[in-house]
Amino acid sequence: MILAYDGSGFAGSQRQPGQRTVQAVLEDAFSTLAGRQTAVVLAGRTDEGVHAAGQVAGVADVRPDWQASRYEMALNALLPDDCAVERIERVEATFHARFDARWREYRYRIWSGPRQPLARSVVWRRHGAIDVEAINDGASRLNGTHDVASFAGGGEGVPWSDRQSAPRGTVRTIMICNARAIDPWWGPAGAGELIELRIVADGFLPRMVRTIAGVLEEIGQRRRDPAWVDALLAGRDRRMAGETAPAHGLTLWRVGYAGDVPEIDAAGVSGNAGASLETRMK
Amino acid sequence: MILAYDGSGFAGSQRQPGQRTVQAVLEDAFSTLAGRQTAVVLAGRTDEGVHAAGQVAGVADVRPDWQASRYEMALNALLPDDCAVERIERVEATFHARFDARWREYRYRIWSGPRQPLARSVVWRRHGAIDVEAINDGASRLNGTHDVASFAGGGEGVPWSDRQSAPRGTVRTIMICNARAIDPWWGPAGAGELIELRIVADGFLPRMVRTIAGVLEEIGQRRRDPAWVDALLAGRDRRMAGETAPAHGLTLWRVGYAGDVPEIDAAGVSGNAGASLETRMK
Repeated sequence: MILAYDGSGFAGSQRQPGQRTVQAVLEDAFSTLAGRQTAVVLAGRTDEGVHAAGQVAGVADVRPDWQASRYEMALNALLPDDCAVERIERVEATFHARFDARWREYRYRIWSGPRQPLARSVVWRRHGAIDVEAINDGASRLNGTHDVASFAGGGEGVPWSDRQSAPRGTVRTIMICNARAIDPWWGPAGAGELIELRIVADGFLPRMVRTIAGVLEEIGQRRRDPAWVDALLAGRDRRMAGETAPAHGLTLWRVGYAGDVPEIDAAGVSGNAGASLETRMK
Repeated sequence: MILAYDGSGFAGSQRQPGQRTVQAVLEDAFSTLAGRQTAVVLAGRTDEGVHAAGQVAGVADVRPDWQASRYEMALNALLPDDCAVERIERVEATFHARFDARWREYRYRIWSGPRQPLARSVVWRRHGAIDVEAINDGASRLNGTHDVASFAGGGEGVPWSDRQSAPRGTVRTIMICNARAIDPWWGPAGAGELIELRIVADGFLPRMVRTIAGVLEEIGQRRRDPAWVDALLAGRDRRMAGETAPAHGLTLWRVGYAGDVPEIDAAGVSGNAGASLETRMK
């Protein structure tokens, strides 16, 4: 299923005792429908406060006699306002939402301008002009396969592997990393600039997008040179990378499976997330 | 000053005893700065749940020794998260934020598609395809000067005049009324369509935009013919117009003063709201 949620009210995606998490809310809904405890697997982990537009989740224990559309309606009736199922499809039993994911796309939004109440939970507000060209100079250095240890976590834990059975350390392939100015959607174009960072990779270390966003923001503010990215990649030390950008600017945009390709058009919108499941089903 | 607020947490714009309103929050902040009760005038009334991106407010009792920028900083420090001052300018003492307004622009957003947690407080969600061409056919019939009594309020009160000293009944001039599909900002383009209605007029009766949005939505859903608008204009009876669209889809976008012109480009974004005050100062 494709899921969207407003991360503001969740203590992240993964179930934790005593916390309101996306997994707990989903599993509660499925358990209500099944009449027994039901487990849900999420494709991407999102931290407390991080949003999702195209999260993918899988559940194995479903009623064979229920159509996907019946699950869609029943779930959306049970789920709270800040979490919704966009689409459900039946897939092969071998499908694993997390292990089968080939890439994930995240978007991070930075707003340089006056305080914006209507966007306060989805943009990171900064002061001062942001140089998009400088950000793209830095971002382009991240494209490719690298040891991204400098961008891993906030220093509080060991990086986690996407596939526990085949740890691959801190090497990841970044397929797309760029930035562009987009129009604010919440009001007239006034003073200020809205920058959208787009990052597609075959896997992410914990807090990796937020660390990259923090690094690129410093470059965009001209406090650091784009070549700083090269030094960070070479250094493989998280302590070099500075501030982690806050969770609320980040959205898990789309998850890709075999046959899916990320949208190339940098000026456009990433394709229909629903296509992911369709492709997987064929 | 130009104001933006998230209407979700406000019982409308105008001060009411015991209610959290935009005027109360603003007057409290100004009163704190002045050390005495200070009155604020808002250019446009917004109902409970209606948002503002370019509301204009005026205050007469200000410290002559304070620069506008000092007020900006002090106010934004005092105001809550869901209300912000975008810009403050000193204007002539004769300026009246409400009586001097020549036009106001509202936008109303209708989403036809799956439930969207990240947009739930700013779009009206409908089921079924929406015919933008039919909406524009109906909307174009509203352009011009008409008796808009059929679009006044929810039937619970008498229309209010913009300038109490010169009541003009229920005749208003609608300068722009149209609709267009815009890209959803909250996630990948999936199933669904986002329609933005744009209405600019020299004045609005209570709930007029929401009544128009309700009428145009019915036309867009093909439950009514675009010519229904002509019948409503001729009938001058609110009971003819059907459902009032909910408050949360509506945003007061911009207020225009002498010399300001609404942005003509239907595909673009209305110009810098800040220009309003600038023009007024000259």
